[in-house]
Parts: sequence; structure tokens; C-alpha cells
Amino acid sequence: MAVSDEFGFIRSIRPASLFHQDKIVGIGDDAAIVAVGEGFESVVCVDTMVEEVHFSPHTMKSYDIGYKALAANISDIAAMGGIPLYYLVSISIPKDWPEEELLAIYNGMKDLGDQYRMDLIGGDTTSGKALVLSVFVIGKVEKGKRLLRSNAKPGDVVFVSGTLGDSAAGLDVLLQDHSGWSELIRKHQNPAPQVELGRILTEFDRVALNDVSDGIASELIEIAEASHVDIVINKDTLPLSTSMVQYKEEKALKWALTGGEDFELVGTICAEDWSLLQKRCQDEDIRITRIGEVMAFGNGQVFMRDEDSKVLLKKEGYNHFLKE
Amino acid sequence: MAVSDEFGFIRSIRPASLFHQDKIVGIGDDAAIVAVGEGFESVVCVDTMVEEVHFSPHTMKSYDIGYKALAANISDIAAMGGIPLYYLVSISIPKDWPEEELLAIYNGMKDLGDQYRMDLIGGDTTSGKALVLSVFVIGKVEKGKRLLRSNAKPGDVVFVSGTLGDSAAGLDVLLQDHSGWSELIRKHQNPAPQVELGRILTEFDRVALNDVSDGIASELIEIAEASHVDIVINKDTLPLSTSMVQYKEEKALKWALTGGEDFELVGTICAEDWSLLQKRCQDEDIRITRIGEVMAFGNGQVFMRDEDSKVLLKKEGYNHFLKE
Repeated sequence: MAVSDEFGFIRSIRPASLFHQDKIVGIGDDAAIVAVGEGFESVVCVDTMVEEVHFSPHTMKSYDIGYKALAANISDIAAMGGIPLYYLVSISIPKDWPEEELLAIYNGMKDLGDQYRMDLIGGDTTSGKALVLSVFVIGKVEKGKRLLRSNAKPGDVVFVSGTLGDSAAGLDVLLQDHSGWSELIRKHQNPAPQVELGRILTEFDRVALNDVSDGIASELIEIAEASHVDIVINKDTLPLSTSMVQYKEEKALKWALTGGEDFELVGTICAEDWSLLQKRCQDEDIRITRIGEVMAFGNGQVFMRDEDSKVLLKKEGYNHFLKE
Repeated sequence: MAVSDEFGFIRSIRPASLFHQDKIVGIGDDAAIVAVGEGFESVVCVDTMVEEVHFSPHTMKSYDIGYKALAANISDIAAMGGIPLYYLVSISIPKDWPEEELLAIYNGMKDLGDQYRMDLIGGDTTSGKALVLSVFVIGKVEKGKRLLRSNAKPGDVVFVSGTLGDSAAGLDVLLQDHSGWSELIRKHQNPAPQVELGRILTEFDRVALNDVSDGIASELIEIAEASHVDIVINKDTLPLSTSMVQYKEEKALKWALTGGEDFELVGTICAEDWSLLQKRCQDEDIRITRIGEVMAFGNGQVFMRDEDSKVLLKKEGYNHFLKE
């Protein structure tokens, strides 16, 4: 790894102890060695955040940038039903960034990673024109337990966890310099990936699953396309947080459908399993809402029903109305 | 992964078929799922290349940038004795880059990856101020076979593969706009990682190993420090390519010691195993040269012997002479 001229910095971010000490060789050699254990497969993903593209210093502190970059990856692991284990960090950063800001990025990752007993096992640090942070996560999932997007079938219940649109609303609060609404701001800066729910969903026979990184419209279209089905959701059932009452319905709805970065889980499950899933979530205090159904095999279209009308959703929202 | 608005591009880089079809879920879901097989552990690493920091368009075409970024990672896997299997690519690129240049980067990776039957299984593409290319590679190595830097012991033979300093010389040829010397240029733009040698080295009981990414002085110091030994190498035995005759000895020596990016393997092996290793390499047509010895347990110092003098090597070269 290209870190040889930054030994002091590497020492400062190198974990003092490892959660998975017996399974790995971490920072300090050419590559890391990891084991996920018998009966498991590795789940791997990468997600990159770029300064002034994915965030600005005005709305995201260094700590938040690290926290959110790791959260986005853990969310991808959760959407496969996996358990996050390890992460590697590649960071390109302007030379004038003070070291404490760089450390704050790693602290944001560490605070979230510690919640999941994740070990930082490698990476590299380079200089560059703007901050580019790539986080690579390795997790594990039991062999054969794969919550793929292509698993949806007609008759399935469509569900989503938590509430939708809060991250986009939180960004709006920050950009308008409003005070208060700290819960929306927290959901924008320090979102909570839904690993626990992903694990519960692996208990069921067949679940199609996505995490809400680009907005629920886009995520449902991905599921519908991968599964060759059409889906309908009901506008009235989309879960919004109480903080959203400050916004006009149109704005709240737009954020709920297309805001993205909520890192909730959206998916489908057989109708017969829905009540058991509800019960399991109730026991674990996880909010989950039924928002629609898989209608039939089809071309991957997703509709939103609103009283007597039905709109065809596009990845970026909806752009034309269809009368039912 | 944050690729949803670039579906056309993703389709164009998505492999038509996979080398490890039965073992993985590749591009097209939230994360990839991979298995390395019973009896193996995963070897993982990341390496990042930044425009105008690690390369300039004057000396590296887009194809070369992709090729070399993947080569650097495969080299890290080789330095652990591993077999490269999968890679993920995170790329941040200015919006004015034409798509064919972006494709050329992926083609450079594909041409090298295909040589090792590696599958591209994920990644993301974002816009940014300058090209930043992070490649994550996953490989495998038999459990317990780990060619760690900390394995060196007094009495070991120090060896290096191939020739040293060619990449730095190739860059010089490019910067001076010299014609000819295409072998040096090729070693700078399309270096060949030494996976086969890494695999041969796993046949031996105890090998300390590094790849030459930062220069052999730096790599040997890392081995010496990790193993708590002192090392001496002989100036006259450092392997140089015949193309280096065009340069003054002082320059060639500097590049050999500190040029870096040669992606050869440098390491130590018990003296008793050295002749067997030589024979194995001869059989496989791999050039390997004995360049020194591990002297004694120590503080991680590396010396270079030259007739009747001995210099202490620093990571960036050598800066003071010691009389023997």
C-alpha cells in the first residue's frame, strides 16, 4: 500500500486492538488477510464520497464525512443480509488539510465501525486536489442466504424500514441555516444502517432487498427490473417522520421518493411471511411499514397509487399521470 | 453502490462472462458475494492512483493508468503469496473526460485482469476535480501460508526478482522524449506483477517478502524493521537491465534503490532453501538474484556493501558513509 511516507499518521489510525484478532493480519503488510469462517461467503462493496459532489464542508464536518461513508457501505452489506466485519480506507486529500481533520474522518468511521465490531485492516493515503474518500467493506453472510434484488414475485408485500426523506430534509435544514430539527440533521450526517433488520430478513425463505441510497423510487425500480415484475405502492402509506410536518406535502413526498441516503431497507416478502416479519420487527423495536404489493410479472414498472389516480415512478421521481 | 445514474456505462464495463461464475454474485446488486473456497483465507488490498500525483497524461495513457493501478494491487497480493481473484474499482473523474478514455482505463485493467482470470465484481463512478482511481483486489492464499515481512531471520539469503530501477528509468525516457528504450517504457507503463514467483515461495517453510513499490531500500527496511534484524546487500549484485547502460552508474544505482514501482519481489529465505528456490525459478524461467544476507537480530538497519565501504540505507536512498 502507498502509505510508506506517512508512518506517523498510519500509527495514529492503526487500531490498538482488533475485534477479530484471531482471524486477520491487518495494517502493516502488503495486503490484509481475513477469514470469514466456515459456512459463510464474503460480501464486499465499495462506496466513494467526493468533496463538493457528495457533500460540502458547510453541511458535513470531517467526522460526519467518515461516519457517513462507512454507513453507506454498511448499508450495502445490510441490504445483502450480511454482517459487516472489516473495512479498508483509501483517501485522497489536499495537502493543506490539517492532520486533525484527517483524523476526525477516521474517528467518524471508528465510532460507527466500533458499533458493529468492525476492524480497519488497510488502505492508503494520497494527496489530491479535493477530498475523495473510498471505503471498502468486507462482511459475511451464510452460504445460500442472499437477499438479492431479483427475488421478488407477484403477490409479495412491499415494505420499508424507518421513515423516508429525512436525510434530504436534514440537508435542507442545514442549507437554510435553520435551528432545531436536530433529528433530521442527524439522519443526514450520521445515518444508521439497518444491519439488524437485514439479519432478521435472512430468517425468511425469499426476500428481495435494497437499501435506500438513491431514493425509494429508484430502489424499487431496481428490484422490479431485476425480478421482472411490476410493483405498486400507496402514497398514503409512505412512512414520514413527524419532523416532516414543517414541509409542504409535495416537498416531503419528493424527498421520500427521490431524496435518497436514508439507508433504510426496502424490499418484498411473500404475503404469508409478512405478519411474522412484522412480529419479529416489533420484538426488536424496528419500525417497518407495508407500502405496497408486487402486482404481476412485467417490465419492471413501479406505480404509486393516490386515491383514484396512479403515477408511473421514474428513478428521479414521477413525470406523468395515468388514470386508473 | 452509487452508480445508478450511469447504467449505460456500467453495462459497457460489466463482464460478459465471469471466470469464477459459480462462486460469485458480481455487479448488479448492493454488494458482491464471493467465496475463496475451503482451506483458503482472503487476501485484500487497495491502491490508489491520483492524476498529477502518481502520473501525468504526458507519460501515461488512460489504458496504462488502469493497467498499472491493477498491477500495483496484484503485486501486493503476490507479496503475500496469494492468487488474485476479484477486483472492485472506485473511480472519480472530471466531467469533461470523454467516455472512451474512461473505457480505456477499464480496458487496461481488463487486459491485465484477464491474464490472471480475475473478475471485476463491483465499484462506483463519481465525478471529481481530478482523476482518482482506487482499485480493491481480493485474492486467496492457503491457510497458514503467509509470506509476512516479519519472517526474516539471521543467516537468511536476501533475494530479488527481475531487474531494479527500470520503471524510474522508463519515466525518465518518457520525460526526456527519447525514442527507443521501449522495454523501459513498458516496465513503467505496464509493469508485470510477480504472482508466479509469490506462489513458488509459498512452497517454502519461511519466507519474508515485500513487493518493490517504493524502492528496494524502503522495502528491505520494512522487512528488517518488522523482523527486528539487520540486513546487508552488495552493490555489485543488484540486478540491472541492459537498457540501463545508457545511464551513469550513480543514476542507475539511485533508481535501483529508490525508484520504486518495479513491482518485483524482494525477500529473504533460509540459506538451506536458497539453491532449491534458484532451481524452481530456473525451471519456470523466472530471474532471481541473491543480493545479500540477513546479518543478525537488530534494529531494522539495512546496509549496502561496496568494496571496502558500507553505507546505511535510508528509505529515500543513503545519506552517510560508514567505513567497515
